[in-house]
Amino acid sequence: LIVKTGVVGVSGYTGQRLVELLKGHPVMDLCYLFSTSFSGHYTDVNPSAYACSYPLVGPFSVEQCAELDVVFLAVPHTKAMPLVSKLHQQCPTLKIIDLSADFRLKDADTYESYYKEPHTAYSSLSASVYGLPEVYKDTIKAATLLANPGCYATAMILGLWPLKGRLSSNTPVVIDAKSGVSGAGKGLKQSSLFCEVHDSLSAYATGEHRHMAELVQETGFSNVMFSPHLVPMHAGIEAAIYIQDVAITQAQLTALFNEAYADAPFVHVLDPSTEPNTRLVTHTNNCVIIPKKKGDWVVIFSLIDNLVKGASGQAIQNANIMFGLDESTGLT
Amino acid sequence: LIVKTGVVGVSGYTGQRLVELLKGHPVMDLCYLFSTSFSGHYTDVNPSAYACSYPLVGPFSVEQCAELDVVFLAVPHTKAMPLVSKLHQQCPTLKIIDLSADFRLKDADTYESYYKEPHTAYSSLSASVYGLPEVYKDTIKAATLLANPGCYATAMILGLWPLKGRLSSNTPVVIDAKSGVSGAGKGLKQSSLFCEVHDSLSAYATGEHRHMAELVQETGFSNVMFSPHLVPMHAGIEAAIYIQDVAITQAQLTALFNEAYADAPFVHVLDPSTEPNTRLVTHTNNCVIIPKKKGDWVVIFSLIDNLVKGASGQAIQNANIMFGLDESTGLT
Amino acid sequence: LIVKTGVVGVSGYTGQRLVELLKGHPVMDLCYLFSTSFSGHYTDVNPSAYACSYPLVGPFSVEQCAELDVVFLAVPHTKAMPLVSKLHQQCPTLKIIDLSADFRLKDADTYESYYKEPHTAYSSLSASVYGLPEVYKDTIKAATLLANPGCYATAMILGLWPLKGRLSSNTPVVIDAKSGVSGAGKGLKQSSLFCEVHDSLSAYATGEHRHMAELVQETGFSNVMFSPHLVPMHAGIEAAIYIQDVAITQAQLTALFNEAYADAPFVHVLDPSTEPNTRLVTHTNNCVIIPKKKGDWVVIFSLIDNLVKGASGQAIQNANIMFGLDESTGLT
Amino acid sequence: LIVKTGVVGVSGYTGQRLVELLKGHPVMDLCYLFSTSFSGHYTDVNPSAYACSYPLVGPFSVEQCAELDVVFLAVPHTKAMPLVSKLHQQCPTLKIIDLSADFRLKDADTYESYYKEPHTAYSSLSASVYGLPEVYKDTIKAATLLANPGCYATAMILGLWPLKGRLSSNTPVVIDAKSGVSGAGKGLKQSSLFCEVHDSLSAYATGEHRHMAELVQETGFSNVMFSPHLVPMHAGIEAAIYIQDVAITQAQLTALFNEAYADAPFVHVLDPSTEPNTRLVTHTNNCVIIPKKKGDWVVIFSLIDNLVKGASGQAIQNANIMFGLDESTGLT
Repeated sequence: LIVKTGVVGVSGYTGQRLVELLKGHPVMDLCYLFSTSFSGHYTDVNPSAYACSYPLVGPFSVEQCAELDVVFLAVPHTKAMPLVSKLHQQCPTLKIIDLSADFRLKDADTYESYYKEPHTAYSSLSASVYGLPEVYKDTIKAATLLANPGCYATAMILGLWPLKGRLSSNTPVVIDAKSGVSGAGKGLKQSSLFCEVHDSLSAYATGEHRHMAELVQETGFSNVMFSPHLVPMHAGIEAAIYIQDVAITQAQLTALFNEAYADAPFVHVLDPSTEPNTRLVTHTNNCVIIPKKKGDWVVIFSLIDNLVKGASGQAIQNANIMFGLDESTGLT
Repeated sequence: LIVKTGVVGVSGYTGQRLVELLKGHPVMDLCYLFSTSFSGHYTDVNPSAYACSYPLVGPFSVEQCAELDVVFLAVPHTKAMPLVSKLHQQCPTLKIIDLSADFRLKDADTYESYYKEPHTAYSSLSASVYGLPEVYKDTIKAATLLANPGCYATAMILGLWPLKGRLSSNTPVVIDAKSGVSGAGKGLKQSSLFCEVHDSLSAYATGEHRHMAELVQETGFSNVMFSPHLVPMHAGIEAAIYIQDVAITQAQLTALFNEAYADAPFVHVLDPSTEPNTRLVTHTNNCVIIPKKKGDWVVIFSLIDNLVKGASGQAIQNANIMFGLDESTGLT
Repeated sequence: LIVKTGVVGVSGYTGQRLVELLKGHPVMDLCYLFSTSFSGHYTDVNPSAYACSYPLVGPFSVEQCAELDVVFLAVPHTKAMPLVSKLHQQCPTLKIIDLSADFRLKDADTYESYYKEPHTAYSSLSASVYGLPEVYKDTIKAATLLANPGCYATAMILGLWPLKGRLSSNTPVVIDAKSGVSGAGKGLKQSSLFCEVHDSLSAYATGEHRHMAELVQETGFSNVMFSPHLVPMHAGIEAAIYIQDVAITQAQLTALFNEAYADAPFVHVLDPSTEPNTRLVTHTNNCVIIPKKKGDWVVIFSLIDNLVKGASGQAIQNANIMFGLDESTGLT
Repeated sequence: LIVKTGVVGVSGYTGQRLVELLKGHPVMDLCYLFSTSFSGHYTDVNPSAYACSYPLVGPFSVEQCAELDVVFLAVPHTKAMPLVSKLHQQCPTLKIIDLSADFRLKDADTYESYYKEPHTAYSSLSASVYGLPEVYKDTIKAATLLANPGCYATAMILGLWPLKGRLSSNTPVVIDAKSGVSGAGKGLKQSSLFCEVHDSLSAYATGEHRHMAELVQETGFSNVMFSPHLVPMHAGIEAAIYIQDVAITQAQLTALFNEAYADAPFVHVLDPSTEPNTRLVTHTNNCVIIPKKKGDWVVIFSLIDNLVKGASGQAIQNANIMFGLDESTGLT
């Protein structure tokens, strides 16, 4: 089996990691690299790619996409909607994996209220599948438009999912999350400059971050204070989830998580004595979850690499499922 | 006025910052530098001190302390107790400022349960004053033994103090705190190595950290989940405090904090639109507090430099008060 | 004495450090802050300035400059030329300290060949004084237009100056220099993004860097390979200077440097056993020089903080001299 | 083919990287993990290894080594000598790959003068092969005791080798090298603490570093000033090599290097316009060489990852050759 593969948006950090992972994938064959901002040799946009050969990078082409089995969209939000509309019309058998936020929220009004932009691809929205393989594996198998989850959303939803039925949906939940700087992308923003980020920690978008909408949609928990932070490190997310007054023992809590993820090859529920550290997951597609009972409180640490399980790795995991491959193909 | 000053423990990060700050202080005169691990030229233990001259570093001497007006103890916990016992006996007029944890907790049993060591200086314990100037300025004026607060404790207590009377003491409070690595000291521990800390974030002592005891003692809040983290930066603490279901408006919240700290020169209550960033306080003795109302939640960000307001700067602020100086002398 | 002071370009890293240093200066009085890219409250462009009050930031105004005693130009190269031309015409008594590169090179053709831009202020060029106080103190006293040296140039020239007469001008000299990222400024360039710089080291402009022209002009050494590097740190420069086959002993070498800088309060010649470390100088206006004889080789390490001695601190040192103050006023 | 493999010293950074690389190797089978400082589950010494299963870690055992085909010694210098002596006596068919410095220098006196320790395994010394595959591939095939080169030595020798016959051995050569902190190992030294290294750059061992001895032995260049630096990054080495007055064009220089490494899969000679950056090689077994002609000077940048091509990756490359495998097996 050869899966003819294209990537749109190869110059960003997500696109680069995607190309790197696909290059080592035994089944996916990188046929076309597209970029809106750059044309030419791939090494000119990613000098670290000198050791292998890659297709030339060119402008997006529906005609070329029509030759492919799957295309990954590693573009900013709002940029995927027009691409998907075109591809849906002209390439009916093409599978699309969208790493942007454009098809994650089922309700276009919610999209518009969080992203302050109109949704221009309603008709495709209903066809999209939220690509969290640990939860929706069966639906993903049949998807033709897959919405790859947000990085924070992945960490938070995996950390809360096993408690979904067990707690009332209005339970107060604090999620204090910390991310490496690659989550902000390669765009030229002052807040992403080395001298702004280095040797400091900052909070941002307290109670207002867009990934909150995915959390609510997927888990139903509606009384959540989600508070993200920027940490001077390249990659990695820790979501620390705090819930008060839960009647459960450590053993029950551990069992609950172990059962929920018994069949998930990339989710590792570790012993409560393990020190939560982003180093446990960086450069891997793993999600490490450490659920702890401390007095009256439940504290759950959920750890991922934002560029891998939080973006490009999960996209490939989804693609594997969509093409009937083992979900870890090319990811270990 | 000249205040004859000594420092015990000049080789650690706290001691070094203390010596540096005292060197620039217009009234405090550095007479003796003591260390248990090192004797000789101060530049041999702190090469950055080449531009000024300092007293030689020697072993601790009660006789030399007897010549002083004030001594700062920048030693690890348990090491201050025997020093204080000796000094209290033999130097009755000497003022002591202890930066260790040994005299912060009024209840020796609490000390023993948190620090796993017997308290061996009960008699001095009752004389100690908890040195948080924004709260205890009048008591500090008369103190002869001052217990300088812990770094996390300073950030947390200043962030919660204005809410003390307003909320029930069993209100659930989540405090997710993040600290730079200098908080772990200069001791040779694997967890403090560059290659262990760099490019990663970790949680530790979740629900078990010792500074929790100071928070309970000073604020009475007993249903707190305090969860500290280590961040790859030199210095800086952010304590993010989350409280649910508080009936207060943003304006009332802001007013409450502004009033509480109207006379505190180092506490700056900033507008809720300010992005919390440790860079706002590093290298200063300031505590920046950003109280936010977000929906049903109150979120308070409290920021300090762990080595300055969280240790050496606050010690000097306390000394200033104890010697009748303006509390900001030598600190701006 | 009050020196009425203005700063043009307060939003960059150099401008910010300048404003911060001037705020604490006992004689310089900050009257006007100018910026071409920003108008409004200074804290909006530098949130860390919340603890003091500052003049509002407004657009550059010759009329306001006419009220001043001195103006500092912290603008990019080519932007200082038109400002200086205007100011020279309309504010004859105003002293100008230019932190850009526009008036450092005496020869306009050399300027044009290094900066690829025409020099548009020839007439002012001849009046400018190269502001390296350790070398040109007497000339600086009488200057009305001062060209503040480049950061690398400062480190390199101070490290080579004592050897100037002693070695032939065509002696092969290797200078491998390393700089913190603030040297690249606050401009939005991909190469200044955290994720590009963090956890890596890069070389750039090998044998082609513009500060080379200052080195040649000032020292006469013409056979120099100057090779700069970018290091993942905020500030600090180390210039490692290598010269082969020099007939000199360590004692002679040390003496040569000690004599050259006997009257220079900010240059510290340290013992050859000292480990060269940028930490020795960061946040100070010092230049630390460690000259070593190793076998047949002379190796000189010259260390500065690029934002202080390499820019804003040196500018104030120059201003102090120009106004008859002690040259270290406001700098210690 | 299955190669039964053991590793001595699994708790250090080199040992960990070795275990990680061997775990993914298709032919090498990890049978025994030895450590002198630790016994128990491998995840207790390396928590990031949770996703796979490993043999228990136990004390070094000659009996167990006798069951193996190859053993890697990832121990500090002086610790390999007694191990090799024992293994040579009791396990005659075992191949030994020593990552310490103990068998790199052919001359025991040179070893003793650089390492200040007597060499206690003379008899084995003569049997050892210096394991730089790009130079000694044929000899390595037959080796039973392989001395894996030092990290700096690897970068320097590969950067100078093509010039070996072309320049006189007393040509003055400056090598200013910069390394990530993992090169200092996991030992508890103050100089390896985060707060000592972070946000600063330092030089050390100027003209005195031990890897100099390997350079002289292998290339014959004897008039070299080798000056290493510590950079606040995890891994990566850049050796910048400066040679004056070489009569060669850029085209000739490029050709010289391309020819020398035509058959070396891990050495990549890149175009002189490429910006030298450690990111080009980190996490790979590659050595990137960028030879530049600048005026009269030849400047060669040689880049490796100190833990991979500078240690564990090169050890596996050597093992591959020794067991008749493709030299890149398990390394891409």
